[in-house]
Amino acid sequence: VRLLERNRRTLREQGIRWRITGVANRRIGWISDANGLDLEPILQGTPARPGIRTQDIRGWLKASAADVLFEASSLNPSDGQPAIDHIRAALETGAHAITANKGPLVHAYEELRSLAAAKQRSFLFESTVMDGMPIFSLFQRDLPLVCLKGFRGILNSTSNLILSGIESGLSYEQSLEQARQLGVAETDPGHDVDGWDAAVKTAVLIRVLMGHAIELGEVEREGISRLKEEAIRAARTQGRPYKSLCQAWREDGRVLARVSPQQIPLSDPLAWVEGTSSMVEFETDLLPGFAIREDHPGVDATAYGMLSDFVRAVGPPAQAAGGDATAGGDGEVQS
Amino acid sequence: VRLLERNRRTLREQGIRWRITGVANRRIGWISDANGLDLEPILQGTPARPGIRTQDIRGWLKASAADVLFEASSLNPSDGQPAIDHIRAALETGAHAITANKGPLVHAYEELRSLAAAKQRSFLFESTVMDGMPIFSLFQRDLPLVCLKGFRGILNSTSNLILSGIESGLSYEQSLEQARQLGVAETDPGHDVDGWDAAVKTAVLIRVLMGHAIELGEVEREGISRLKEEAIRAARTQGRPYKSLCQAWREDGRVLARVSPQQIPLSDPLAWVEGTSSMVEFETDLLPGFAIREDHPGVDATAYGMLSDFVRAVGPPAQAAGGDATAGGDGEVQS
Repeated sequence: VRLLERNRRTLREQGIRWRITGVANRRIGWISDANGLDLEPILQGTPARPGIRTQDIRGWLKASAADVLFEASSLNPSDGQPAIDHIRAALETGAHAITANKGPLVHAYEELRSLAAAKQRSFLFESTVMDGMPIFSLFQRDLPLVCLKGFRGILNSTSNLILSGIESGLSYEQSLEQARQLGVAETDPGHDVDGWDAAVKTAVLIRVLMGHAIELGEVEREGISRLKEEAIRAARTQGRPYKSLCQAWREDGRVLARVSPQQIPLSDPLAWVEGTSSMVEFETDLLPGFAIREDHPGVDATAYGMLSDFVRAVGPPAQAAGGDATAGGDGEVQS
Repeated sequence: VRLLERNRRTLREQGIRWRITGVANRRIGWISDANGLDLEPILQGTPARPGIRTQDIRGWLKASAADVLFEASSLNPSDGQPAIDHIRAALETGAHAITANKGPLVHAYEELRSLAAAKQRSFLFESTVMDGMPIFSLFQRDLPLVCLKGFRGILNSTSNLILSGIESGLSYEQSLEQARQLGVAETDPGHDVDGWDAAVKTAVLIRVLMGHAIELGEVEREGISRLKEEAIRAARTQGRPYKSLCQAWREDGRVLARVSPQQIPLSDPLAWVEGTSSMVEFETDLLPGFAIREDHPGVDATAYGMLSDFVRAVGPPAQAAGGDATAGGDGEVQS
């Protein structure tokens, strides 16, 4: 919301006007006002709650008269719910759906993509992998004819932070606590240290960019928790530090994938990805050694991914680079 | 041409059919056949030359009935000619112009962009910096609202190769000769080792991505040739190797820029960019530490940049990611 506010004028110059007509989370429930909510009380966390209250996603979308849904519920690796229901409901009622939640992509990507196409709405998810880095847009719009053969990358901040902490002398528990205090690790860090978060991201990249409907269970998964602290420190001293590596490759008409701690030599750029940074190297048929890196992102980077999806969904169509972009109609968007 | 051939079926599936109706270079002059040239004799270098002959770019474009110009003449840093004339003529006669030549961007970017917009044609140049890496498309289409504050990068292969050679014990002359044998260095390597090539790329990124019409002469420029071989080797031994670094930053409403050899610590990913690889780190307001790397590209990577521009120019409009792309009309393109 703050990023939307900050970019209000620039968005208007591109023909995009907006107002927030609904907000929902576990704490406040489903709140709507089709004329626009006063968000300050909500952002401040005060008890005064504006708007009318509904009971579920469909009632809420209707009361909000939403054109766009921003879905940012937390990851449920086992079945992707309730995020899938939220997105399905939005698309069915004719709203664009933007999500930062990876679960729906692993469990219902093909269904939701088809639904979006049938409804001529956008289903966008740029924030799900590497925050706001435009990985999906890049492959789907800017790399025509390219076939993605595989990738390797470091995609889980918490594991990366914990390994760095242990290398610097902390115990596993101390290092995890430090990651928590930095606001990176969840209260239950199992998704991270057992490799679930990275496995889900790997599966998402495979489904969307490699066109193979891999099941999450097919991603071989080994967390960092099985590593001994001494081994982690020794590996760093030897110049081949451990990193939690995501890998995917094509083999016999299938895509195979693995998330596992691996020792990486310092001559490999992936060895230098520290803390909350991430990096993916893509192996393609036409672009040798194409890699994207993101350094020390904060929550703003995720928010930017959702904002950029918003512009893709409701903004003027993308122009081939070089021409002067011309804004579309001055439509008003309710989200 | 070989890359176009190889992708003929995939292009047709996207509604793009093409034939080559004109070829021109210093050796064979201006050759056209609006019904399509038989390119094998030209690709094989045999003396039998098909087509009708014209005298200049305008006669040639007309005889070729060209819809798209692929401009790949060599860099002229001093005034960007004759490439500017080629591109101007193409746009004026209603053809899209695609160039791999940086000169026109430094000397006539704003004029050519306006001309393209007025003619509703595309003026595209993805191959000019980092070969086929989609830097320009990325910023112009996939990073809405982002402001580029500056960048640092390694963009000249020859300098990078020569430095690596000297570090491994070769003399400057031997190392240059090795780069020549690899087909990377020009016969006259002055553009590379004196920093001209890197300065032109820096100026192009500034003009196109930072919106500041910097003159080439404003880019502070220092080549690698002033470095002593011993100093280069000592720097490597100390773990702070020399790299020819391109930098740009905003200051007092202007953009300042510099190309110079600098010592870079091994903890900086740029220190690990070797040989013909390249990398740019972008400093933006919204995406922390966004970087793109390309590893050991060959001539195919440059060709891919032009091919991807071709798809942008004549293919179906880019879809927001997530929707199913639908092909446009089955138009035939002559280029």
